[in-house]
Amino acid sequence: MNRAGRRTVNAQIRCEPMVADRADTLRTVAADVSDPPEDRTALVDLLGVLAYAELCAFDRLAEDARMAPTLAGRTAMCAMATVEFGHHRRLARRLEDLGVPPAAAMEPFVAALETYHALTEPATWLEGVVKAYVGDGMAADFYREIAEFVDPSTRALIHEVIADSGRAEFAVHEVQAALAAQPAAAGRLALWARRLVGEAISQTQHVLADRDALMRLFLAGTGMAGVSALIERITDRHAERMRALGLTR
Amino acid sequence: MNRAGRRTVNAQIRCEPMVADRADTLRTVAADVSDPPEDRTALVDLLGVLAYAELCAFDRLAEDARMAPTLAGRTAMCAMATVEFGHHRRLARRLEDLGVPPAAAMEPFVAALETYHALTEPATWLEGVVKAYVGDGMAADFYREIAEFVDPSTRALIHEVIADSGRAEFAVHEVQAALAAQPAAAGRLALWARRLVGEAISQTQHVLADRDALMRLFLAGTGMAGVSALIERITDRHAERMRALGLTR
Repeated sequence: MNRAGRRTVNAQIRCEPMVADRADTLRTVAADVSDPPEDRTALVDLLGVLAYAELCAFDRLAEDARMAPTLAGRTAMCAMATVEFGHHRRLARRLEDLGVPPAAAMEPFVAALETYHALTEPATWLEGVVKAYVGDGMAADFYREIAEFVDPSTRALIHEVIADSGRAEFAVHEVQAALAAQPAAAGRLALWARRLVGEAISQTQHVLADRDALMRLFLAGTGMAGVSALIERITDRHAERMRALGLTR
Repeated sequence: MNRAGRRTVNAQIRCEPMVADRADTLRTVAADVSDPPEDRTALVDLLGVLAYAELCAFDRLAEDARMAPTLAGRTAMCAMATVEFGHHRRLARRLEDLGVPPAAAMEPFVAALETYHALTEPATWLEGVVKAYVGDGMAADFYREIAEFVDPSTRALIHEVIADSGRAEFAVHEVQAALAAQPAAAGRLALWARRLVGEAISQTQHVLADRDALMRLFLAGTGMAGVSALIERITDRHAERMRALGLTR
């Protein structure tokens, strides 16, 4: 069932105006972040959310592969799914090394990620391809930004598990071929991409609002002035992907 | 949707009485099997059916994993799925080495394998676990028997891709734990296993009836006297699996 229509598209990030005392509070939070137990909570959260994201990515790519019009397309998407599962395993192993059961670390993020996927269930093969590239691409950009705020070994692991591994090329090829045959499909796909972005932002906000340590890591890393620059970088990269697909934002 | 109830269980192999002239024909077929083009057709068929079987196994394990009651169970079944996809890739690569596009080699077997899976869609996690062990186990036994009739390099590849990789242990653990809590479930699961066997045999018969070269390879390998011994070996191994699960046949 495609439940993507249930919610309205919300591709705007609502940034509340900064007032002085809120900025002060956030600076205090930022100063606290060197506290080791807090660091560890944020690290476990980050590995946990990524581990569950990879497991969901496996699930969804495996499911969407069934819509492929060709066996070659189907196996290409199955291959992406297995790559994601490999990433999940690496993250789960890192959590085990930290003495944290992966299931416990993932559990707080199950609802948000399941909600994202339930609200963005592709109805067609092309929607699945665009989701695998645009949706996952944006998530990867976000994790890449956060990776800057953790220790080098965790950062290297995150960079590794969010690597694109040929997905861009595959998506561009599939979408451009489809649009060449059916130019009118572009508007619908562009709208679909907007919905993906809206739901991704919405769920990210829920996660950050729920997980103090992760929010503190994020704010300590970016600094208050850095948040909008980060959003701009992510938005720019999103626009690049849309252009590569031949879709307007 | 669980469509498993649509057909009646048919766990009997119907062996027609052998009459002299039919046996003669089959002996002639057996003598012909050394003919290289015929050999090659059978080999491509064997690799094609196995490649598609592995792709289906990936699909179905990935799907059934979602019914897991725990994240640990879910990831265990996802891991099995990725192993199957790895096998699919090895078989597809072998086909490419032979100059045959994998999609072309798999195509003749799509209908039979999709029918098998459509008729044996698990309705519960335990049915999925039993299918992954009993259904796939029986298929593996059958491929192992046919592997005896091909060149050593293909045989080694087949042995590799049908390896159990810890599945037995996982299934036995899951099913025995469930039966300890709910002994009454045993009857239903045993019936389910019978249905799996019935449908597997039924689709195998369709495939062999459709693919002359594969049938010739099979009969040339077993000899007429060998068919019933082969069936007996496969039946015995099935019975062992059922005993291991704590289910009666």
